[in-house]
Amino acid sequence: MTNDRETGLVLDPKYDAAGLITAVCTHGDSVLMVAHMNAEALAKTLETGEAHFWSRSRGRLWKKGETSGHVLHVRQVRIDCDQDAVWLIVDPVGPACHTGEPSCFYRLVEGDRLARA
Amino acid sequence: MTNDRETGLVLDPKYDAAGLITAVCTHGDSVLMVAHMNAEALAKTLETGEAHFWSRSRGRLWKKGETSGHVLHVRQVRIDCDQDAVWLIVDPVGPACHTGEPSCFYRLVEGDRLARA
Repeated sequence: MTNDRETGLVLDPKYDAAGLITAVCTHGDSVLMVAHMNAEALAKTLETGEAHFWSRSRGRLWKKGETSGHVLHVRQVRIDCDQDAVWLIVDPVGPACHTGEPSCFYRLVEGDRLARA
Repeated sequence: MTNDRETGLVLDPKYDAAGLITAVCTHGDSVLMVAHMNAEALAKTLETGEAHFWSRSRGRLWKKGETSGHVLHVRQVRIDCDQDAVWLIVDPVGPACHTGEPSCFYRLVEGDRLARA
């Protein structure tokens, strides 16, 4: 059930067919956002200490906050067992969501309806 | 920049080409795991209060803990702005990772090396 990728100490991300892994950003007990990273975005994030992602809609590398100024300072990067997802523990400068909410997850799911969190 | 899916109060998940959304599970300030849900997995999770996912490797619905007993009791489900990711706040019964670790994110990324968190 385990292998080198799971138990080893070498960074070896398992990129999907589009060359992406999932990135989850948290601050304290709040999930701020979920986005995607390609190899370049991960490298830039590790190098600069600011979160970079791959924008699937725009088809380009994207530094979070590049226009809004709402960058995410990265305190720690963790990777999961099969290395297809990273968890970034961050300090956000301003709201993480483009809607102006602190977190993108500003709604609760209650059956087939949503409610403000 | 916003639309009904982002600002409305109707559950309208934006499934990808494979019919999946991303699901992030947290307990306190820890991200336990990241997995995927199809519509059925989301419905089962909301209906039962126990986390269900779609296993991409096995190609079937999967109740977390169905064999190990390490189920995730779901306290709250939130959805993000564009409704392609859900955040589950859970109470885990036992370790969340199949390796026996409490969280799948048991390694830090430090350059191109990993270290125990």
